Amino acid sequence: MSIVLYSHDYFMSEALKEARVALAAGEVPVGAVVVAGNKIIAKAHNQTEMLTDATAHAEMLAITSAANYLGSKYLTDCTLYVTLEPCVMCAGALHWAHLQKLVIGAPDTQRGYSLLQNNILHPKTEVVKNVQPTACKELIDEFFRKLRSQ
Amino acid sequence: MSIVLYSHDYFMSEALKEARVALAAGEVPVGAVVVAGNKIIAKAHNQTEMLTDATAHAEMLAITSAANYLGSKYLTDCTLYVTLEPCVMCAGALHWAHLQKLVIGAPDTQRGYSLLQNNILHPKTEVVKNVQPTACKELIDEFFRKLRSQ
Repeated sequence: MSIVLYSHDYFMSEALKEARVALAAGEVPVGAVVVAGNKIIAKAHNQTEMLTDATAHAEMLAITSAANYLGSKYLTDCTLYVTLEPCVMCAGALHWAHLQKLVIGAPDTQRGYSLLQNNILHPKTEVVKNVQPTACKELIDEFFRKLRSQ
Repeated sequence: MSIVLYSHDYFMSEALKEARVALAAGEVPVGAVVVAGNKIIAKAHNQTEMLTDATAHAEMLAITSAANYLGSKYLTDCTLYVTLEPCVMCAGALHWAHLQKLVIGAPDTQRGYSLLQNNILHPKTEVVKNVQPTACKELIDEFFRKLRSQ
């Protein structure tokens, strides 16, 4: 008998699987899952190269997919797990989606939304940081190491 | 013989046509066009209700459409005309797209990106404000007047 614990670690591991799919496809390796009632209702990874679209970040695709699943623009009862801290665009999108909870793997010290002086998330969004940050950051580091050696 | 002047006014009028399509569909009336070499390569209007997607702002749809037309993630030689000042999400997207020029109709005193203390647009993006602001704002005011009377 196997027991699945629906912890932040478990769902971040699922987001990491998405990030690895991105890495294998030559994309910046960021993955995201949206969870409602302990069920994953959307999974996505960064696809800016594949879709030739600068807006196709993991979080944007996950928000659209989750909204489509729920039939609602609002993710008020949802948690989004993402391997890298969202950028300003994605944090702005999470604001509009009225996200309940945001769980972040590694901080983004270059482009993270928290570098801004203003809080741009929805005031009701709870934030949890540093869930498996080392594993999340290692994927990013691996991607840029490969890119520089090409 | 008719002469078309490719002015900011001309292209903002085209963005206003898109905003009116949104209004007729019961969407917040914001329209956008993307111009490259005096040619409109993308048109879009807000479709958050139609698509049940909080990210489906006019600018986001126009960026994706223009990138698809150009076969490039980057809109480095493009001007985006939008009837209402972009929000934080859309300005963040315009950053990633490396937009050359942003032309704004009316300011958004509630949700505009310029309310932030940091400049979140790409440092190379030139900004032109207040092109037909009255016509652009009137559509927004008409929408909310109708909404409140329902």
